[in-house]
Amino acid sequence: MKPLLVTMGDAAGIGPETLLLAARQGELQDATVFGDLGVLQRAAAAVGGGLPLAVVASPDDAVPPGALRIWPVPDLPAGLAELPWGRVDARAGAAAARCIEAAVAAVQVGQGRAIVTAPIHKEALAAAGVPYPGHTEMLQALANPAAPPPVRMMLANPELRVVLVTIHVSLRRAIEALDFDAVLSTLRIAHQAARAWGQPAPRIAVAGLNPHAGEGGLFGDEEIRFIAPAVQAARAEGIDAQGPLAPDTVFMRARRGAFDLVVAMTHDHGLIPVKYLGVEEGVNVTLGLPFVRTSPDHGTAFDIAGRGRADPASLVAALRMARRLSDRPAGPQAAAPSDDS
Amino acid sequence: MKPLLVTMGDAAGIGPETLLLAARQGELQDATVFGDLGVLQRAAAAVGGGLPLAVVASPDDAVPPGALRIWPVPDLPAGLAELPWGRVDARAGAAAARCIEAAVAAVQVGQGRAIVTAPIHKEALAAAGVPYPGHTEMLQALANPAAPPPVRMMLANPELRVVLVTIHVSLRRAIEALDFDAVLSTLRIAHQAARAWGQPAPRIAVAGLNPHAGEGGLFGDEEIRFIAPAVQAARAEGIDAQGPLAPDTVFMRARRGAFDLVVAMTHDHGLIPVKYLGVEEGVNVTLGLPFVRTSPDHGTAFDIAGRGRADPASLVAALRMARRLSDRPAGPQAAAPSDDS
Repeated sequence: MKPLLVTMGDAAGIGPETLLLAARQGELQDATVFGDLGVLQRAAAAVGGGLPLAVVASPDDAVPPGALRIWPVPDLPAGLAELPWGRVDARAGAAAARCIEAAVAAVQVGQGRAIVTAPIHKEALAAAGVPYPGHTEMLQALANPAAPPPVRMMLANPELRVVLVTIHVSLRRAIEALDFDAVLSTLRIAHQAARAWGQPAPRIAVAGLNPHAGEGGLFGDEEIRFIAPAVQAARAEGIDAQGPLAPDTVFMRARRGAFDLVVAMTHDHGLIPVKYLGVEEGVNVTLGLPFVRTSPDHGTAFDIAGRGRADPASLVAALRMARRLSDRPAGPQAAAPSDDS
Repeated sequence: MKPLLVTMGDAAGIGPETLLLAARQGELQDATVFGDLGVLQRAAAAVGGGLPLAVVASPDDAVPPGALRIWPVPDLPAGLAELPWGRVDARAGAAAARCIEAAVAAVQVGQGRAIVTAPIHKEALAAAGVPYPGHTEMLQALANPAAPPPVRMMLANPELRVVLVTIHVSLRRAIEALDFDAVLSTLRIAHQAARAWGQPAPRIAVAGLNPHAGEGGLFGDEEIRFIAPAVQAARAEGIDAQGPLAPDTVFMRARRGAFDLVVAMTHDHGLIPVKYLGVEEGVNVTLGLPFVRTSPDHGTAFDIAGRGRADPASLVAALRMARRLSDRPAGPQAAAPSDDS
């Protein structure tokens, strides 16, 4: 089995030390870190060492058992290991972007089974002149520069998987952005991703936008105007979609096993239940890319970087999720949904 | 200690049988049911009997241990016990309204410590010409016909209490309805209610409206325009309010004990976490009335009424919550908040 490809993230944040902490727990044995050797050595020192670092010439070269496999990304800025912890720096932004590019290139030529990304810092990216606000946009462009594929964010923990139609916009704008195409496209992406990771007929619940999913039009008409029609269109394509269902009970029902995935219209409808039992196990998964990509559900945490106090739990969850989702040959995610539902 | 006053709800729904089921579990020993004797006898038969019904002349008269205390509400329509189960009927609506009026009158003259209401049916109320769409509006008007007090809905389970600024309107309208006064008024009502039930300095978290509570204005400006100012105004009045906080983590933090109450801007931001672990224990509490009022968090369930299959768990939770919240002399809820926070 090919390795998981893990990017080191922003060199001034907690990304590198969470990698070392997870590695010491044995969670990176099937992984290759894409990063800077000096940064990782510094992170190893920050967490108290105790783990050999093994530099490889190719991302899937074998290393001695117990060593952390590192593929040093070429052409990184100099002096990364001397950057102050917890500060925005263009060099850290540039390096983080280079690591992501290298990991995508490697997964695209079959040198890895999935990508797991440690956190980056938006301002550092911007300072480096990277033309993307974050991981998602960058991964879309790298996956297909000519036609970036539509993607959706999934947040998952061991008992709930939620796919979001809208994310980082105001609630007002989210409502304006919602339409038939946004919902149907989300259903297609979610369905195809679930098939790619081995669920032949995923049961997808669609949460409504309004209280009681609109109560028959009394509390809003988005359900009638386009959410229900999008669900119907998806069903006609063989997608096992159900809804729109009342937002306040659909997540509870999914947690109890009634559905495999829930599609949520807004950021917080989806994230409130995923995070309710604890954020440590939350994992961010990008659906719609031609490869599996997961990330921990936290940022660079500049306030505690370099002190060895970071919690690797979400990274460990992201590694495990990436392993699980790439357990089967992924196949082309753009394949048409079959009618086996 | 005065009894809990429990209204029977719509005679054609599951209200009466949930009362009998809860009574058989010993949960109504300190309660008086306001209802129709025939309806309650029919409900007793529906659940298999096994409980003596004791009619009293005054709501706080003593009854033999193990009997269900019933205060027959005068002037109810005839033939209630012959109504078909599970159908909208004006007589059931009129009777339900009369029971609520009688219970409010009793609690106002000190014959009871709190009111617990079994579910009513909006259409039956309307058919009876009752000029209120539901319990809340009716209770406001009965509490003070000249100046109905502003109220808020609280949803609570054993680990989370959420107070809603907006409820049964579309998400779009909810956003339009939000303003400084709506948020500050909610904070005052929540603070005063919590003090009345015995928390001298309740810690109240205020969830934002937008993702990440607006991310400094990037994802919406409601937090900056009026939510943060309302929190500041509340703090200046001695209310221990904090926020606006990111909606996707504040409920998790409250569940872990960081706050006593969370104020949520929308119906589903608040209800998704309350219901996530199961709806059975969810209780609806009306804050702002001059008495404690709770209700189970379900409707009349016409589809299963009369079969003895209703689950009394939410009613039991409502009874226990009413008991807990009226454990101390309630005092005037309109009292000005003190500065003991």
